[in-house]
Amino acid sequence: MSKKPLILVTNDDGITAPGIRTLIKVMKELGNVVVVAPDSPQSAMGHAITINSTLHLERVHIDSGDQPEYSCSGTPADCVKLAVNEILDRRPDLCVSGINHGSNSSINVIYSGTMSAALEAGIEGIPAIGFSLLDYNYNADFEASESFVKQIAKNVLKNGMPKDVVLNVNIPNLKKSMIKGIKICRQARANWEEEFDKRKTPQGKDYYWLTGKFVNLDHGEDTDEWALTNSYVSVVPVQFDLTAHHCIQQLNTWNFDD
Amino acid sequence: MSKKPLILVTNDDGITAPGIRTLIKVMKELGNVVVVAPDSPQSAMGHAITINSTLHLERVHIDSGDQPEYSCSGTPADCVKLAVNEILDRRPDLCVSGINHGSNSSINVIYSGTMSAALEAGIEGIPAIGFSLLDYNYNADFEASESFVKQIAKNVLKNGMPKDVVLNVNIPNLKKSMIKGIKICRQARANWEEEFDKRKTPQGKDYYWLTGKFVNLDHGEDTDEWALTNSYVSVVPVQFDLTAHHCIQQLNTWNFDD
Repeated sequence: MSKKPLILVTNDDGITAPGIRTLIKVMKELGNVVVVAPDSPQSAMGHAITINSTLHLERVHIDSGDQPEYSCSGTPADCVKLAVNEILDRRPDLCVSGINHGSNSSINVIYSGTMSAALEAGIEGIPAIGFSLLDYNYNADFEASESFVKQIAKNVLKNGMPKDVVLNVNIPNLKKSMIKGIKICRQARANWEEEFDKRKTPQGKDYYWLTGKFVNLDHGEDTDEWALTNSYVSVVPVQFDLTAHHCIQQLNTWNFDD
Repeated sequence: MSKKPLILVTNDDGITAPGIRTLIKVMKELGNVVVVAPDSPQSAMGHAITINSTLHLERVHIDSGDQPEYSCSGTPADCVKLAVNEILDRRPDLCVSGINHGSNSSINVIYSGTMSAALEAGIEGIPAIGFSLLDYNYNADFEASESFVKQIAKNVLKNGMPKDVVLNVNIPNLKKSMIKGIKICRQARANWEEEFDKRKTPQGKDYYWLTGKFVNLDHGEDTDEWALTNSYVSVVPVQFDLTAHHCIQQLNTWNFDD
């Protein structure tokens, strides 16, 4: 009988969030689970790492499970680095991050702490998946997510991942019977139209809250936004080679001498 | 006579860093400059944005120049969002970020606050460049950088940028006479081998400092690492569509039904 896979679980909503508790439950059906996750919410942290401050790890027991769990004072990317270098005694076979409370589809991948953990694992050569549910509520219902999370993780454990690629999985906020299936997609070209909420402090000084409206500029039927709007789970293969290879030839025509 | 270009200048080392002061000086030769930059260092912030906290802007005068300058309590990406939405009365013709004290070549682009500002501008449709000098010292010598920064910015103002692409420019830490020229490159496949420095608090509890060794796994002569090692300025076109398009066909062979 083959050895059970070793699965590292992390997230960006913090180690006690219902999303990661669901993810731990599902992963325990597939392998031996170790949890290293932030001790507090780290949403929108992008790919931040902690270089000018100390990092603290704490062994914790959140629920009755027997999986080792560590809460970490750092970012999601820090959690992965610490797990691989200081906690695990071998490289994990899979790193999963999430389930995020809220979408990380299209351009949100850039701002996402959930996906930064998956990307960090990918950079270290570990197959990795970020999962997100399109419901920002703390008490979101993760039940429908469970079977999709399991199917996708099983495929990664069985097939491996293409080199230098991780998966960005988003799940529509629907009952399971309403979800039509899983679609492999590309990232939609969308952005946020910011609207700053300008206020005054009690002392009369201006300050701002960042708010905004999500605008999808891309009506392709092969995008993650299309899949989610049409009741599919979206799976986008994501790479960390950001080179726009198609532009190199064009830039070589520029003249840098005058 | 044509209107002078409007140039937004930001960085991640903070508004008083010598690197941004050099960048401001060079950009003033090319257009009208407005500065919106963090009030404190934000290195390794990745693409973090501030959504759970308030943002503050302060009009400041750092040196004798007449350019409007604002220090911002947020991240580099916040600075760009606030500049475009709350400060500038029209869209800038160019956004430049840096000059960073230290490399943002190869995989460092993922962790880089400097590049997150450029990417944020790119997402908003503004031509954008991140500049970095391969010298981490506060008192780095930016003199050789000046002419390369100017040549590259002039090209972007003249030619425009390819759609949804920004430039990641790294400059070797050499005298100008030693730099051989500018090379358009792809991002090298490199990573950091972390080494955590484990210490004990005065109370006997473990804590960690993140340190590490940069390892270039990619010996291609078309990479930014090759260019920098061989005394060239590296220019990598960077995109924020992270889709690994080449993997979609392969992932479509996976079976999600069993």
